[in-house]
Amino acid sequence: MLILLRSDASAADRARVAALIAELGFEVRHIPGRQRDALAVVGNDGRLDAARFTALSGVEEVVHLTKPYRMVAREWRPEPTVVAIPGGISIGGKAVLVVAGPCSVESEEQIFRTARAVQAAGARALRAGAFKPRTSPYAFQGLGAAGLALLAAVRKETGLAIVTEAMDEAGLELVAEVADVVQIGARNMQNFALLKRAGRAGKPVLLKRGPHATLTDLLLSAEYVLSEGNPNVILCERGIRSFDSTTRNLLDVNAIPAVKSLSHLPIMADPSHGTGKRALVPAMARAAVAAGADGLLIEVHADPEAALSDGAQSLYPEQFASLMDELRAIARAVGREIA
Amino acid sequence: MLILLRSDASAADRARVAALIAELGFEVRHIPGRQRDALAVVGNDGRLDAARFTALSGVEEVVHLTKPYRMVAREWRPEPTVVAIPGGISIGGKAVLVVAGPCSVESEEQIFRTARAVQAAGARALRAGAFKPRTSPYAFQGLGAAGLALLAAVRKETGLAIVTEAMDEAGLELVAEVADVVQIGARNMQNFALLKRAGRAGKPVLLKRGPHATLTDLLLSAEYVLSEGNPNVILCERGIRSFDSTTRNLLDVNAIPAVKSLSHLPIMADPSHGTGKRALVPAMARAAVAAGADGLLIEVHADPEAALSDGAQSLYPEQFASLMDELRAIARAVGREIA
Amino acid sequence: MLILLRSDASAADRARVAALIAELGFEVRHIPGRQRDALAVVGNDGRLDAARFTALSGVEEVVHLTKPYRMVAREWRPEPTVVAIPGGISIGGKAVLVVAGPCSVESEEQIFRTARAVQAAGARALRAGAFKPRTSPYAFQGLGAAGLALLAAVRKETGLAIVTEAMDEAGLELVAEVADVVQIGARNMQNFALLKRAGRAGKPVLLKRGPHATLTDLLLSAEYVLSEGNPNVILCERGIRSFDSTTRNLLDVNAIPAVKSLSHLPIMADPSHGTGKRALVPAMARAAVAAGADGLLIEVHADPEAALSDGAQSLYPEQFASLMDELRAIARAVGREIA
Amino acid sequence: MLILLRSDASAADRARVAALIAELGFEVRHIPGRQRDALAVVGNDGRLDAARFTALSGVEEVVHLTKPYRMVAREWRPEPTVVAIPGGISIGGKAVLVVAGPCSVESEEQIFRTARAVQAAGARALRAGAFKPRTSPYAFQGLGAAGLALLAAVRKETGLAIVTEAMDEAGLELVAEVADVVQIGARNMQNFALLKRAGRAGKPVLLKRGPHATLTDLLLSAEYVLSEGNPNVILCERGIRSFDSTTRNLLDVNAIPAVKSLSHLPIMADPSHGTGKRALVPAMARAAVAAGADGLLIEVHADPEAALSDGAQSLYPEQFASLMDELRAIARAVGREIA
Repeated sequence: MLILLRSDASAADRARVAALIAELGFEVRHIPGRQRDALAVVGNDGRLDAARFTALSGVEEVVHLTKPYRMVAREWRPEPTVVAIPGGISIGGKAVLVVAGPCSVESEEQIFRTARAVQAAGARALRAGAFKPRTSPYAFQGLGAAGLALLAAVRKETGLAIVTEAMDEAGLELVAEVADVVQIGARNMQNFALLKRAGRAGKPVLLKRGPHATLTDLLLSAEYVLSEGNPNVILCERGIRSFDSTTRNLLDVNAIPAVKSLSHLPIMADPSHGTGKRALVPAMARAAVAAGADGLLIEVHADPEAALSDGAQSLYPEQFASLMDELRAIARAVGREIA
Repeated sequence: MLILLRSDASAADRARVAALIAELGFEVRHIPGRQRDALAVVGNDGRLDAARFTALSGVEEVVHLTKPYRMVAREWRPEPTVVAIPGGISIGGKAVLVVAGPCSVESEEQIFRTARAVQAAGARALRAGAFKPRTSPYAFQGLGAAGLALLAAVRKETGLAIVTEAMDEAGLELVAEVADVVQIGARNMQNFALLKRAGRAGKPVLLKRGPHATLTDLLLSAEYVLSEGNPNVILCERGIRSFDSTTRNLLDVNAIPAVKSLSHLPIMADPSHGTGKRALVPAMARAAVAAGADGLLIEVHADPEAALSDGAQSLYPEQFASLMDELRAIARAVGREIA
Repeated sequence: MLILLRSDASAADRARVAALIAELGFEVRHIPGRQRDALAVVGNDGRLDAARFTALSGVEEVVHLTKPYRMVAREWRPEPTVVAIPGGISIGGKAVLVVAGPCSVESEEQIFRTARAVQAAGARALRAGAFKPRTSPYAFQGLGAAGLALLAAVRKETGLAIVTEAMDEAGLELVAEVADVVQIGARNMQNFALLKRAGRAGKPVLLKRGPHATLTDLLLSAEYVLSEGNPNVILCERGIRSFDSTTRNLLDVNAIPAVKSLSHLPIMADPSHGTGKRALVPAMARAAVAAGADGLLIEVHADPEAALSDGAQSLYPEQFASLMDELRAIARAVGREIA
Repeated sequence: MLILLRSDASAADRARVAALIAELGFEVRHIPGRQRDALAVVGNDGRLDAARFTALSGVEEVVHLTKPYRMVAREWRPEPTVVAIPGGISIGGKAVLVVAGPCSVESEEQIFRTARAVQAAGARALRAGAFKPRTSPYAFQGLGAAGLALLAAVRKETGLAIVTEAMDEAGLELVAEVADVVQIGARNMQNFALLKRAGRAGKPVLLKRGPHATLTDLLLSAEYVLSEGNPNVILCERGIRSFDSTTRNLLDVNAIPAVKSLSHLPIMADPSHGTGKRALVPAMARAAVAAGADGLLIEVHADPEAALSDGAQSLYPEQFASLMDELRAIARAVGREIA
């Protein structure tokens, strides 16, 4: 951390900054300049809070030289994390994991038909929501506990691993009993109470990036989960909010190689939410794998036209099957395979 | 709602759309065009979910003609909501309410000194956090229940109304016992479980806009609270995330008149988070009042240099006192007064 | 175009809107609603200016039902445009065109070494700037006419097609004499005087998307060039400005399939400017081809460490050669080939 | 400038960086750290190009300690620039300058009627476009030279100072003959050829911020004008592009105090383009003055409903007159006055 002083900082200002650095247990180094001076903090592993310095008199700016996270950082743990998921699958290794399914569990028939369709196309994990965070209180909110029971039944019958979202702490208890992977949705990415609880859930956590979150924000949210004792975090890029409304969101493909350079955690992409338009999903799914994604989350519905939510971005089963073929070709082209 | 068909939509596509409109209980109107046709839904009061139509075959786009919210809309309730707060104050009427205080409750001495300072300058409500949502798990997380107890003591001694944040459902119970106004923070703006709980809290709710939220998103989140039975919602603009890192956030002053044209709810501005820089706070506080804000949320700390969080954007007590004088002049210039 | 009236619009308001529609030569259709009415304009092919209606009394909003461009629209010309470039190459067909080279022409030795390196790796076109738009007046501004002369010499000796930027009308005359493709840079995407001049240049135009431009803005800028008589426009996505400074820009891969659905023009991607970081270029180049890009613009420098501009995002010649192998594999996987 | 090395940088990497610093004429200072080292460049006044270092092997990141501009910086010239404009007016001093007028000159009657209306309300300068940059080639493009002639006639008869836009170098010659202030529009903010030409125009320049430009970008564009010898630059905030389409643009009020802290140049605000909606203009005009703007640019049209461009954001003459009264009250409240 570098503390840049103002050109009119006094000797007392400088002394106060130096004293606080020492008081917090770090070494201080003085860097004289022509226009203004700086003080470097030596020994910070990223956990030092810059806010302690920005308020001090005479301080112009605080520059991070070390990333503000530690446990998730590749700098401190170079080898990639491979997260094991029940059913003999994993994510973060050579195989690219495709998780597919409808936005919501709507009925027994709908979830079984969709599950079988995605399994037939080669998917090994099903994603479907029982608890649905919806922007409007008038939109379908999910089946709740009844939806979880249907997912448990699907797993029992098909062997597919189950990924489903928890929206609050009480729900997380229920979800963690059924799910193989607990999803924290984009809107809850900075619901820190929920993140801490997920850190004690005993299940892998799929953490979706908020539409406004920087990669630093995302990695700090993951750090919350790891720091509570759960190392099995899977990150997921699902589209950011941009100034162009041509697509609902803008899948940030850059985040895939960027996160891999910053962190050892696996990263997936969700081209369905990432675009909001069915016609764009295959191209963006291929792009994500070509860019190095460790997995994909793809919305598929047995009958998208009847879907109660997200139908416009859900693939038809036959589209998903042909996309899987395309993805196998792309995976081979980058030296990987589809799980 | 207008459902725009693709130029290659079939008669069957059209019939299916029309049938769904009827099935959902609305009237349908056909609008033939030269390139493509459209179907209008007549009778929607804003609660119809567009997603039901976007997935249908032959549909190009769904255009909202009615705003997707109802209870918060000025269109359906023209007169402004005035929220009464214990201690003889209110927000949404002629008087502009200034709420001030430190980011966090840090100690008995700190909170009492700051409370007395803001009261001396004319503030009638204190904002301070006992539960703090922090981007990093290594930053100060607040005193919790002990902080609430200190706030209760402050109120008892000073008579200041208390505004403080709840981060989760369990915390909301505790907060609602002590606070006069329960704050839902920007990162929890779409924590729908928490919003529903706040709708049953029996206390006014201060809902802060997320840094990525459109005004429609914000108003839909408020609709969650109202639709659970709590009409006393105060909106708060606190800075959006922009592409320019010159300031930490970008206070969206436009949101003030825009929200007032869309909704009957009162709206405040938080120039402290909205800029992140102490030096910019007075100018932006004045701007917000000139633009029609019903209130301000301003961070003040008895000793900003010792603050455990947000010190860089907290005013010194004497700065706050002189800002209050400036605000009185601006309020008069727009035909209002400071509460 | 749909003109949505306010709920309090008067009969006179409605009549005035209808009269203006008729006066502009279109047919009007009345759409009564429960809350408010609308008027549809029938016969607009996208060239009608919405601004003529938004100012009228009683008008709430104008909704575009037809895209505001015509000549570039796939709706009006379904078959893709294939732009022929001297030297037996083209863009927009099955083959993916890779254009490579340094940011700027710096010296005879630099440009010849780099040109030979990219040619050896399989590139068939060279991009290098003689005129450089730089954010700061203190940064290297290019060799100007001397740079163009060096590019002419490179073409003569290597047979590589030359792509180079024109920054103003006078420069465009010079550039068009030498270049096989004239580039309009991102900062000039809405320099309409320059666009019109490029429409009369007699050479294909490579139009780069501005970092803030919506796809509609980009296509309208292309429409300027086409409407002056030049159908040979190649679009190029080169990164938008986002809220996250982890990368210099954010390559919007979504724009590739989205533009292809909206327009018949070929689209390239520039992963070098699109990320600003050499380490991210290969992944994003692969992603762009997987998403359907018709071409790539990649910065390569014989000695990036000595580059006077953009060295941090320029590939080393050997990196470029190995990227070309990766791209061939990706192109095959999507049923295409590298030109 | 601080050059942060990677943790795996070699001694040779470090030596090369140090050698380049020395070669460019600066002093180098070594800053050892625990994880990684850094090198500080001493003596840079802001004009050193960071790109020269970012490409070097072993370099992680380059951190600016000095702003990358010099002539426009308050750090190097603390006293504010007051730009004198013919007709006894000026901007940058105590008086706030209101410039008003229609988007475009449309006809003799329109421009004279509007000019007299704004003058009657107290405006002392007229802004109207003869050359209009329009996103669509099908929108009204202005009257050109005939429009300039009308503006000259208006000035002669009314004495109002004239502000009008130049879109290209040839047009700038024409504009500079007639205008008292030459406007460079938002879309040309980084048209560097035009900026350089404006630096030699002999007239004050009104430089509008691009909707995507950071304040650093804006100040660097102003630096282009100053570095060509023209110190009379007036900056203008006119709305940035945001993710929320509720308003056409988002007037960045924060930019006003932020620019004033960074630069000695005067700054205006344009609430008309900054919101795109007539109903929001008065509130945002008041906010801008309350935040410290040195001037306002406000669209007024004698008959907004008949305007060929921007009618929806143009005030009626009587609205403008009553806004002027409001602005006088706000100006007084902040210790200023309306010119």
